[in-house]
Amino acid sequence: MLSFMAKEKLVKSITSMDEDFAKWYTDVCIKAELVDYASVKGCMIIRPYGYAIWENIQRQMDDRFKATGHENVYMPLFIPESLLQKEKDHVEGFAPEVAWVTHGGEEKLEERMCVRPTSETLFCDHYKNIVHSYRDLPKLYNQWCNVVRWEKTTRPFLRSREFLWQEGHTLHATPEEAQAETIQMLNVYEEFAKNVLAMPVVKGVKTAKERFAGAEETYTIEALMHDGKALQSGTSHYFGDGFAKAFGIEYTDKENKLVNPFQTSWGTTTRLIGAIIMTHGDDSGLVLPPAVAPIQAVIVPIASHKEGVLEKANSIYKRLQAVCRVKLDDSDQTPGWKFAEYEMKGVPLRIELGPRDIENNVCVVVRRDNGEKTTVSLDELETKIQELLSAVHNGLYNKALERREAMTYDAHSLEEMKEIADNKPGFIRAMWCGCRECEDKLKEEVGVTSRCIPFEQEEIDGKCVYCGKPAKSMLYWGKAY
Amino acid sequence: MLSFMAKEKLVKSITSMDEDFAKWYTDVCIKAELVDYASVKGCMIIRPYGYAIWENIQRQMDDRFKATGHENVYMPLFIPESLLQKEKDHVEGFAPEVAWVTHGGEEKLEERMCVRPTSETLFCDHYKNIVHSYRDLPKLYNQWCNVVRWEKTTRPFLRSREFLWQEGHTLHATPEEAQAETIQMLNVYEEFAKNVLAMPVVKGVKTAKERFAGAEETYTIEALMHDGKALQSGTSHYFGDGFAKAFGIEYTDKENKLVNPFQTSWGTTTRLIGAIIMTHGDDSGLVLPPAVAPIQAVIVPIASHKEGVLEKANSIYKRLQAVCRVKLDDSDQTPGWKFAEYEMKGVPLRIELGPRDIENNVCVVVRRDNGEKTTVSLDELETKIQELLSAVHNGLYNKALERREAMTYDAHSLEEMKEIADNKPGFIRAMWCGCRECEDKLKEEVGVTSRCIPFEQEEIDGKCVYCGKPAKSMLYWGKAY
Repeated sequence: MLSFMAKEKLVKSITSMDEDFAKWYTDVCIKAELVDYASVKGCMIIRPYGYAIWENIQRQMDDRFKATGHENVYMPLFIPESLLQKEKDHVEGFAPEVAWVTHGGEEKLEERMCVRPTSETLFCDHYKNIVHSYRDLPKLYNQWCNVVRWEKTTRPFLRSREFLWQEGHTLHATPEEAQAETIQMLNVYEEFAKNVLAMPVVKGVKTAKERFAGAEETYTIEALMHDGKALQSGTSHYFGDGFAKAFGIEYTDKENKLVNPFQTSWGTTTRLIGAIIMTHGDDSGLVLPPAVAPIQAVIVPIASHKEGVLEKANSIYKRLQAVCRVKLDDSDQTPGWKFAEYEMKGVPLRIELGPRDIENNVCVVVRRDNGEKTTVSLDELETKIQELLSAVHNGLYNKALERREAMTYDAHSLEEMKEIADNKPGFIRAMWCGCRECEDKLKEEVGVTSRCIPFEQEEIDGKCVYCGKPAKSMLYWGKAY
Repeated sequence: MLSFMAKEKLVKSITSMDEDFAKWYTDVCIKAELVDYASVKGCMIIRPYGYAIWENIQRQMDDRFKATGHENVYMPLFIPESLLQKEKDHVEGFAPEVAWVTHGGEEKLEERMCVRPTSETLFCDHYKNIVHSYRDLPKLYNQWCNVVRWEKTTRPFLRSREFLWQEGHTLHATPEEAQAETIQMLNVYEEFAKNVLAMPVVKGVKTAKERFAGAEETYTIEALMHDGKALQSGTSHYFGDGFAKAFGIEYTDKENKLVNPFQTSWGTTTRLIGAIIMTHGDDSGLVLPPAVAPIQAVIVPIASHKEGVLEKANSIYKRLQAVCRVKLDDSDQTPGWKFAEYEMKGVPLRIELGPRDIENNVCVVVRRDNGEKTTVSLDELETKIQELLSAVHNGLYNKALERREAMTYDAHSLEEMKEIADNKPGFIRAMWCGCRECEDKLKEEVGVTSRCIPFEQEEIDGKCVYCGKPAKSMLYWGKAY
């Protein structure tokens, strides 16, 4: 009977993906208790279960930043208008979407300040104060904080007026060193996406049109969501010495000359939680990669009124605390209710333990990603649970990779590209001559945006899919969040 | 010669405490590279060394919150004006010092929003949505975030327009349970101050006059700084059901009746870094309690050009990484420069290692708190370093406790209280009848504020120090930051 229940679709309150993907997404966010709506339009409340995922992301990413020599700092929340305006492209990119503070208490401010949409200007202002000699370089700083962008349309995690993120800002003596840092951090993001989020990404460089405001080069990792839309999941920018010149950051080099340093910035946000939901989730709700799951395994005692069941469940609970984040649910809800609850919350492993299991010195472990049941001897519990967690991680990664590959299409002509864009959600790969006009036209006529020029190039064709002139590179295109 | 240098006052660029305490404080903040001034008046940049202290505070405090069953959440940065106004006392307390956002991008907002000065209103608004049944209680939430209060006079860490903090907000079925939570968290703060910050505190309840805006009772831990001023270092509030009523938070209890829950909040801030500086610092700079020190021990090789010195220093460095946060400074600065640098930065232990030490299979360990030198056999390095770190912690705590005791005075009359306040910086203990008028008069005439009614009462006298009527309790008074 229990085995039958486990095979049923236990979670019925979530709209199915095929019916309405946007509604499915919101249902998962709300019903898995990741977020709640706030009184402030376009802002979100991140609830304990959602915030615990963010804490797991933060800790593991921060470890990687520290291992690559970065230090954390904290810059002010506010940017005076005059400071924001120092770098021209940058202010043009951000001014239309910032929130302005005009009053402190009862008094009108002499100069209005915006709430940081990103902190390049603040870091530059600080670097100007503290960098004077080549001995002060490099500066490898990162900041974990909240930022605000006054977006018109918002969705939890994907696009909200306030979000949490990390922003790295580094300063180097040479362009080569700064470029190497930009790539290094992009690689950190790719490795993190793969090994922590179980999420395959396409790594590449943005076209000039899609660059970050003020950057000379913007690199990106792009992931493909369940509905075939792309999600930009992390970016890394090379600034050259543009900001340094605009802000007057100068240092004395080894030859005793006064020169400008070279700069980078790189960031990822709470949007990664949206990426997890839309990469791994299914019609039963959330499916969490073990590395970020607040609960990696939940123990559900069966017939827990029977003698010895709760005691045994408790002893398993204590043993497993040494190897994973485990929860014992000994509440008086039915096992069926609990199965549905933890399925919806995406807990990677469910451990069922009833009187007969105890007799046989086993428990039954059910994988959230594929429903597979394994009977595990209690003698090898710790090892098997660790193996199964790692199997879930690999299962998720491979499934997502297969889906992405199946949803990536090559277009050899404009017609074919239109046909794919209209009928087949996913990435489109096509050749490009490198000019802005073709990029604009393709966006206009096909309704897709360029995602990136991938590092792994492949010559699909000799000529640009739009103008037919000789192609310079193969580009990924898609509809994006 | 080295031994002579170590005994000298190595740090000369810091103003001495006796000369100008305020300048000493600022010198330490800037020269130990804890903060930098920002372009935004009254805001601070927390530099890597300062932020690493905050990360150590955060991690160890968060562990305590989780061990007592609390979960972290994240609420929006903004509070709509109408929401702030829902609880009358609360808005009166905070409205004069909030920063107002009036525009999003180019558009004027329909309703202006303040940047959170504290988040009671946001938590209440959320609790109203998610709490419906007695099964939903208690809610034990905490948030780590930035808050803004538009202060006129500011000082790094002690009073700045933006600061970092944690704010706990909990909801309970009964007043008793909420009161027990309030006291539990106050005890967590006291234990943390003692065991992590090496800082003795007086624990007690605020008078009605000094309560948090909207609270029924405010509890506090008060520490005494080097200059004899008091620093409120953490507070815990009991709200009764006042906020719940104002915000319409209701739930169905076990008897199926609709009732209001009872509430608490409690907080500590980056001000704790100011407390560390002014509790333990000296004329050579910062002195850090080992539990929060970013570097707990620094290895300074002596005559490092001599064969084998750097290799040995490196092997010690690797061994010590297993037991503490250790740094090896093998830069080409002189040992004297390094001694001064790490002394100013308050590193608890300095490990000196030269050719003769290596010959004798020893190193010399110098304590930052008292300058004491110990020759340690390299065979027992790990154990001895751990013992010495713990000795530094205890040394700091005991020194601070002795100073506080020596700077705490009992006043039996108004005259005596004035005399102490004018001539002896520190805490003043005096009896109080419990009426607001005497409290106001004492502040006016003596120039001190009531710090708290300590839990550990002692009858100094039978009557109120101001009016002479029968006394209700003994109060701590002081000049405060």
